[in-house]
Amino acid sequence: MIKVGIVGGTGYTGVELLRLLARHPKVSLRAITSRGEAGTRVADMFPNLRGHVDLNFTDPKDAALTDCDVVFFATPNGIAMQQTRALLAAGVKVIDLAADFRIKDIATWEKWYGMTHACPELVAEAVYGLPEINRAQIREARLVANPGCYPTAVQLGFLPLLEVGAVNPGYLIADAKSGVSGAGRKAETHILFSEAADNFKAYGVSGHRHWPEIKQGLERVAGREVGLTFTPHLTPMIRGIHATLYMGLTKEVDLQAVYEKRYAGERFVDVLPAGAHPDTRSVRGSNVCRIALHRPRNGNVVVVLSVIDNLVKGAAGQAVQNMNIMFGVDEAAGIDNLGLLP
Amino acid sequence: MIKVGIVGGTGYTGVELLRLLARHPKVSLRAITSRGEAGTRVADMFPNLRGHVDLNFTDPKDAALTDCDVVFFATPNGIAMQQTRALLAAGVKVIDLAADFRIKDIATWEKWYGMTHACPELVAEAVYGLPEINRAQIREARLVANPGCYPTAVQLGFLPLLEVGAVNPGYLIADAKSGVSGAGRKAETHILFSEAADNFKAYGVSGHRHWPEIKQGLERVAGREVGLTFTPHLTPMIRGIHATLYMGLTKEVDLQAVYEKRYAGERFVDVLPAGAHPDTRSVRGSNVCRIALHRPRNGNVVVVLSVIDNLVKGAAGQAVQNMNIMFGVDEAAGIDNLGLLP
Amino acid sequence: MIKVGIVGGTGYTGVELLRLLARHPKVSLRAITSRGEAGTRVADMFPNLRGHVDLNFTDPKDAALTDCDVVFFATPNGIAMQQTRALLAAGVKVIDLAADFRIKDIATWEKWYGMTHACPELVAEAVYGLPEINRAQIREARLVANPGCYPTAVQLGFLPLLEVGAVNPGYLIADAKSGVSGAGRKAETHILFSEAADNFKAYGVSGHRHWPEIKQGLERVAGREVGLTFTPHLTPMIRGIHATLYMGLTKEVDLQAVYEKRYAGERFVDVLPAGAHPDTRSVRGSNVCRIALHRPRNGNVVVVLSVIDNLVKGAAGQAVQNMNIMFGVDEAAGIDNLGLLP
Amino acid sequence: MIKVGIVGGTGYTGVELLRLLARHPKVSLRAITSRGEAGTRVADMFPNLRGHVDLNFTDPKDAALTDCDVVFFATPNGIAMQQTRALLAAGVKVIDLAADFRIKDIATWEKWYGMTHACPELVAEAVYGLPEINRAQIREARLVANPGCYPTAVQLGFLPLLEVGAVNPGYLIADAKSGVSGAGRKAETHILFSEAADNFKAYGVSGHRHWPEIKQGLERVAGREVGLTFTPHLTPMIRGIHATLYMGLTKEVDLQAVYEKRYAGERFVDVLPAGAHPDTRSVRGSNVCRIALHRPRNGNVVVVLSVIDNLVKGAAGQAVQNMNIMFGVDEAAGIDNLGLLP
Repeated sequence: MIKVGIVGGTGYTGVELLRLLARHPKVSLRAITSRGEAGTRVADMFPNLRGHVDLNFTDPKDAALTDCDVVFFATPNGIAMQQTRALLAAGVKVIDLAADFRIKDIATWEKWYGMTHACPELVAEAVYGLPEINRAQIREARLVANPGCYPTAVQLGFLPLLEVGAVNPGYLIADAKSGVSGAGRKAETHILFSEAADNFKAYGVSGHRHWPEIKQGLERVAGREVGLTFTPHLTPMIRGIHATLYMGLTKEVDLQAVYEKRYAGERFVDVLPAGAHPDTRSVRGSNVCRIALHRPRNGNVVVVLSVIDNLVKGAAGQAVQNMNIMFGVDEAAGIDNLGLLP
Repeated sequence: MIKVGIVGGTGYTGVELLRLLARHPKVSLRAITSRGEAGTRVADMFPNLRGHVDLNFTDPKDAALTDCDVVFFATPNGIAMQQTRALLAAGVKVIDLAADFRIKDIATWEKWYGMTHACPELVAEAVYGLPEINRAQIREARLVANPGCYPTAVQLGFLPLLEVGAVNPGYLIADAKSGVSGAGRKAETHILFSEAADNFKAYGVSGHRHWPEIKQGLERVAGREVGLTFTPHLTPMIRGIHATLYMGLTKEVDLQAVYEKRYAGERFVDVLPAGAHPDTRSVRGSNVCRIALHRPRNGNVVVVLSVIDNLVKGAAGQAVQNMNIMFGVDEAAGIDNLGLLP
Repeated sequence: MIKVGIVGGTGYTGVELLRLLARHPKVSLRAITSRGEAGTRVADMFPNLRGHVDLNFTDPKDAALTDCDVVFFATPNGIAMQQTRALLAAGVKVIDLAADFRIKDIATWEKWYGMTHACPELVAEAVYGLPEINRAQIREARLVANPGCYPTAVQLGFLPLLEVGAVNPGYLIADAKSGVSGAGRKAETHILFSEAADNFKAYGVSGHRHWPEIKQGLERVAGREVGLTFTPHLTPMIRGIHATLYMGLTKEVDLQAVYEKRYAGERFVDVLPAGAHPDTRSVRGSNVCRIALHRPRNGNVVVVLSVIDNLVKGAAGQAVQNMNIMFGVDEAAGIDNLGLLP
Repeated sequence: MIKVGIVGGTGYTGVELLRLLARHPKVSLRAITSRGEAGTRVADMFPNLRGHVDLNFTDPKDAALTDCDVVFFATPNGIAMQQTRALLAAGVKVIDLAADFRIKDIATWEKWYGMTHACPELVAEAVYGLPEINRAQIREARLVANPGCYPTAVQLGFLPLLEVGAVNPGYLIADAKSGVSGAGRKAETHILFSEAADNFKAYGVSGHRHWPEIKQGLERVAGREVGLTFTPHLTPMIRGIHATLYMGLTKEVDLQAVYEKRYAGERFVDVLPAGAHPDTRSVRGSNVCRIALHRPRNGNVVVVLSVIDNLVKGAAGQAVQNMNIMFGVDEAAGIDNLGLLP
């Protein structure tokens, strides 16, 4: 059994990790920390876990994290970078669900996240945990930077055409829509029910932290600088991301074949038949990314639709997928459940 | 492996059965019928099943249902009663998720359902599939009448106090609220998004088909006629029933102890600590019924809060639970997943 | 023109007052205060007011409230009682949308609201602003205690039968459901979109501040102590209250006639035809209370359904109605708009 | 008073016309027709109209439409073109809220709408009812083709930059999101609450009827063919359209100044301060189109955000605006209400 610890378990990625790990056949949950809720039964805060998770939150300083095989950080940005060095030194693997290790260029990271990085040398070592690109490196990694939710949906949608060099990388548009849980479980006015329900709005149009992360990933694949416009929107649903991607074709390819071939061996990327429209609910609670391709009026604009559950493939599920790869167990263990529809 | 057939798989209870049975360790799905969709891949209609369910819908007349060990009817009322006799004769067990076998008094059934019953003798044989009351009979049953969604939430909430005779059975009030999926997947105006969203209303206040079903169940327990007022409401959520039950105490009891004792051995009834308020999302997608007890100002009115997922414990999940009992496998097989929260 | 000031304009009752008063033909808006937002343009915080409301928030200490004819308090509980004495002394009328003056018994108020009352003598003077009961007194009042949202829907539903003495006042049940805006515009976790959407729950079952307010109102009408069970629920919609009321008949009356007669002259109470089910959206944004009556199976339990918009008839609209009465203008001025449906 | 008739009043644009016209100071509602609901009181179908609209639905053949000054068609496509010739001949003006007269090229119309046009000569005469472009022609028109909802939001967002020739018209992208009421009040499965709630999806990506309408409008302004990609999405809210528009700048302009100048005299287009993000709820129930401009990282991609209420500025409100212009009354009469927020 893999001994697992979770740092920061009171947010949505924390409870989602617990939902998935509680039924993972190869996992033994050892500790979950929370500074503010130390002593509280986890299942008292999240009653869906009653009967499945028996742990109490522990204070971070009391948690025996170094006895774990792997520790997940489900914390705000800037926490994992303080504690990772010591855990790695103790032989514990680390998967960070926040952004501390996602961006290779330290100056860029410090600009977008507004703090000084505590361990730049670990950023260099960290593997970006998108298994569909980095599976081999993840297998050997001590430290995995779990991708952001938008970056997962957007990169998986763009990659196949960038890889075959069939589109203009200078003019990529990602119009992305997220459920409100993507904003986390923080008491903030703009994500109150009465503000976010029956409403739709864009935010961060002039700049969003996921823009440099997506750009870095696309540039690695394209092998050159890309021009990316990224527009996030807040949608009145709890879970789900829908990315609508626009690219200009530069040569003729069989779109459907390109995507089907690229993702043929991938258990968590599902390319729909040509002309389909994936809905976010088809992946609600599941680790699948569903993709469909369109080329309106056979013109040179390709429209790719890519959906994920932001808390699963966009966070906790992908983190478990990475853990499975790191520990050599079945990649789908604990995350092969079906989407909840309706 | 239990060979399973489903009649009528295009509604919400049908797709929910598929979601649960697709991952049931002891089940082999053999056939799913639909008159209108024969030939269609099930996963084309319900994309959450892609990769997990490979069946096509078959026309009812072509389906080899008599080769199955058990057949679920996820059909409108009045269908199962036409086909059950032949299936039983062929040695196939039957679980009806509709109302054909729920009400023992044929005249009452015919009045509320507006048709003549096709096989009254099977009504007498049928076992009402509420495991928390009828587990022993279900184990021996050939034919199970799976309870309605409201009746499940309401009966489980009322039963312990009726059983100990501590309340006035002549004045029971069940104020129940249901998510919209309880109305089924029918193209009807009143359950359109634009009609049912951001709105709340009662319906069927003067009479609802679940009233005689609940009444029958409560009277069996109380051993006498009960006075029941039942008010259903439509709530702008997809899944979930919240029953708020009012009873007048007639003698002093330790409420919390009565419920905890009654449900001590039950894996799918969870009595919350005194003073709690269960929310429906804590059971979203799970087979659990969560109950909490209140006695405001220590008066003689008891308020019981009882929540279920109407498609799981209120329909497909309970049907699988009944199948598990009928076939002697672990009662929780295939239905031990956690609620999806948030 | 009536010169109007508003204290505390950053909550939902504040912006709703502005929406209504901005188009009131007899009102001149003079000042709106906010300690935290002084200097901010009101329309920057609430863009629906752009082009209609030109005011900035002012600091309370700078606002020339004594130049107004009437001041509305759209503040948390405990603020109005600090400032009302001085305003009245300056000849300004006061309408408090909070609870400071609603409950006549000071000890009861102090127990439920957890503070010492600052001006008990004004509680005695204050008129409870439910026009359908107190219109004559409101006309003469200097100080009006605007009713709570639940109390408005519940009292209007119970009153006619209590007035004619046809029900048992010892066993009244009010099962009430509210949209989330009833909890206000406060950054609290439990009313986040991701917590409150697609979910339903009861709260405060053992005790809620609106219980003594409702009880006081019903007892005044019944002329004796009443036994009231009041259960509030949180519903995933923005606006709207649906109260489902249960009473036991003690003598035969023509229910429909009793209600139609009682509310014949009332412009903001609409008794639906027998057997109807009002939906909350029919009053969305409007000042109407819609009521329907049921007597299931002609038994002795009466079920009354009463709906309002909690921010209009349950708060800001009723406050404007009170102002209209106090200043002798058309009672419907500024609040005769239709419900927004769908 | 303007004598008004409405053909086809049982859909959402019909009830919205009634909501607005019922309080229009210069309108006398004379007739509203419905084949299926003849004899029914309008307010029985739409209870929000109780006390404000006293009409019954009449059968189309019995309605004295030729006595009206203007007739609105709130019908499915293909109805208005059958009846308009006779009404015009009788001196009645016509405003069609459907698509019969929107597209000048008959062959294009017939291809997208799948029927033969009944009166091509009237298409030539009809004025496209977007007042911000065609106010002078609307003033003189007998027949107005009221724009579609998407076309209104998209055109108002694109126009200023196309007019000043500062963008590449060959590569325009309109990523548009609509509330579910845009699909009308039809009993169809895909717009059921349980299908559309807590879900997000694109539809018609390969082709949507509003594409040729938008293209025609933009080409008229650009004076040349435009390359337009239009992607509609279904959003889990009742009302509202949010169009996110992408253009490539071809010369330097002061974006904010261009839009503010273009819409300076327009009462129903509100250009927000630079960097703002309009939310759809700010125009809920109101006739305003709110626009904000972004130029991320000062690059050459402009992002325009444009929101409307699809039933008001996108349908009934704009139709009333057109009527006001045609009859020379205040352009804002009956449609100057504020957005309902929250």
